[in-house]
Amino acid sequence: MKIAVDAMGGDNAPQAVIEGCVAALGDMSADVILVGKEDVIREELEKYKGMYEEDRIEIVHAEEVIENEDSPVKAVRTKKNSSLVMAVDMVKDGTANAVMSAGNTGALMAAALLRLGRIKGIERPAIVSAFPKLGKKGEFVLLADTGANAECTAKNLLGFAYMGSIYRHHAYGTENPAIGLINIGAEETKGTPMLKETYQMLKETDLNFIGNVEGRDIPRTDADVLVCDGFTGNIVLKLTEGTAWNVFKAIKEKITEGLQAKVGALLLKKKLYSLKEEFDYSTYGGAPILGVKGMVFKMHGSSSSVAVRNAVVKAAAVCERDVIGEIEQKMAQFTAKEEENGAE
Amino acid sequence: MKIAVDAMGGDNAPQAVIEGCVAALGDMSADVILVGKEDVIREELEKYKGMYEEDRIEIVHAEEVIENEDSPVKAVRTKKNSSLVMAVDMVKDGTANAVMSAGNTGALMAAALLRLGRIKGIERPAIVSAFPKLGKKGEFVLLADTGANAECTAKNLLGFAYMGSIYRHHAYGTENPAIGLINIGAEETKGTPMLKETYQMLKETDLNFIGNVEGRDIPRTDADVLVCDGFTGNIVLKLTEGTAWNVFKAIKEKITEGLQAKVGALLLKKKLYSLKEEFDYSTYGGAPILGVKGMVFKMHGSSSSVAVRNAVVKAAAVCERDVIGEIEQKMAQFTAKEEENGAE
Repeated sequence: MKIAVDAMGGDNAPQAVIEGCVAALGDMSADVILVGKEDVIREELEKYKGMYEEDRIEIVHAEEVIENEDSPVKAVRTKKNSSLVMAVDMVKDGTANAVMSAGNTGALMAAALLRLGRIKGIERPAIVSAFPKLGKKGEFVLLADTGANAECTAKNLLGFAYMGSIYRHHAYGTENPAIGLINIGAEETKGTPMLKETYQMLKETDLNFIGNVEGRDIPRTDADVLVCDGFTGNIVLKLTEGTAWNVFKAIKEKITEGLQAKVGALLLKKKLYSLKEEFDYSTYGGAPILGVKGMVFKMHGSSSSVAVRNAVVKAAAVCERDVIGEIEQKMAQFTAKEEENGAE
Repeated sequence: MKIAVDAMGGDNAPQAVIEGCVAALGDMSADVILVGKEDVIREELEKYKGMYEEDRIEIVHAEEVIENEDSPVKAVRTKKNSSLVMAVDMVKDGTANAVMSAGNTGALMAAALLRLGRIKGIERPAIVSAFPKLGKKGEFVLLADTGANAECTAKNLLGFAYMGSIYRHHAYGTENPAIGLINIGAEETKGTPMLKETYQMLKETDLNFIGNVEGRDIPRTDADVLVCDGFTGNIVLKLTEGTAWNVFKAIKEKITEGLQAKVGALLLKKKLYSLKEEFDYSTYGGAPILGVKGMVFKMHGSSSSVAVRNAVVKAAAVCERDVIGEIEQKMAQFTAKEEENGAE
């Protein structure tokens, strides 16, 4: 098993990416291919000399780097020798079992689509992100989609539901994952025409569909997977992160006001810190881009070395399972059933 | 000045509604008309006998009540003698300067549209809700729309921006309010085609448009008014509420674990409580339904008597200003300019 990692992508690249990959080796049997500027990678790896099995990290030189400011499709088309595109191509040609990048999200999506192609029956790939449930220690929900598709059809969302369910099962062992639909009311008549149609379609599948989930219920939802268009998913993910972060910040500011409170704060510091850790997104691994013919993972742009390590280890574990094969099979079944029913 | 209040609407009606109205009298010169079952209202008012000026509360009997489960448009059409519809009609016939209800949101919206009618140039009315900025004490942002319109056009959002700006100025004294557009990226090329169009339209207005605001920046945004479709607004409002509430709950659970932490918790209790109060939505008043020919306010369904008091006092203050006249004027200017430019 080999994981191709874009060594140049991300706010803390290449340092955090390379440190994370080195650390990951101890927690998995898979090897790593670091793709990027060879001299830069070699220099970074020097730091860890003697601390890892050198033959488990291969370096593949890539002359170019796709920057965050680059236009995604254009960058993928013109920077064919970039670390991101070359790493994706390694999955296409079978050199690697998965590819990971903390770089330009749009470019990774574009490369996945253009170089690997879509799975039959999937109209739109989805970015699937995990986030912790608040106050439910160790529990988390997968959100599909979180930004790949700003506008969606009911059929797109149905695909997200299938892919989210399959990924949740394979990556985290959840049997028959509970699927929720993000909406502005619990009743099936709520929301846009697209969401009403999605509700009816989900009801008729063999998925464990538990109905609509409202904004206020998202933080502690019973769902294992929440389905929504990419616009909504992006807002939900970032707003949750922003709100939780700001509440913590406000509490920290508040409890350090005045001496008496400071004494209390010292006693509580450890407790609050452990709580903040529970809300840490990076422990759940990278976000897979599902629906393309290959395992592609987006890591958070500001990933620390710990986040990279977690993501690489999780990706290697997921590669042991046949996620793509099951998506292909499910979508083929669905398409066959649709054709049988005379639907388009 | 007279404020018509639906005494029967809301989870805590009529008790909390009537108690709130009685309390409001002390903080405003406006009088109150309580609309609902006369005997029930009289019985409730008995509790406060001698504690308020009785001639400042008028009771108008309404035989029917619109329930939360009622279908909005149907309820407004068939329950003409309901407290909600009768209270709205008082604004139409000039008996009252504003109407308020904590009851069925859809029915209040439908009654506002069907009985009062839209302001010329406004295609869709908007519900405008205030919520506190996290960690910025006393600061808050208005969100338009928060649930009236699940699907919107760019022109709808432009109307929300004008109405939000005018309301912010009149209700809270903010000069030249900063307007932000909720989107999935800061650049003007981000989001759906509808949002890109909205961005361009907002740029060309005389509004103080500050650009797109991403999910993670919503809690501490520099904007005074955030514009979005009603689906997004509903999710943002409820998710913020749910996330903040759950973080507080988790902290409370955490700090009461173990003796040492409990000592710290006692010392901090007051601080945390004051922080929680800062996040209290109810201090900012009811949510106006803007774009109809009359001042209509939705109060939160679970409003306490304090929330009702705050909302009634704020509504009375807003009625001193010509919010509707200014919306009419702005939209007439906008329509004239559009016609001049040959747009439809």
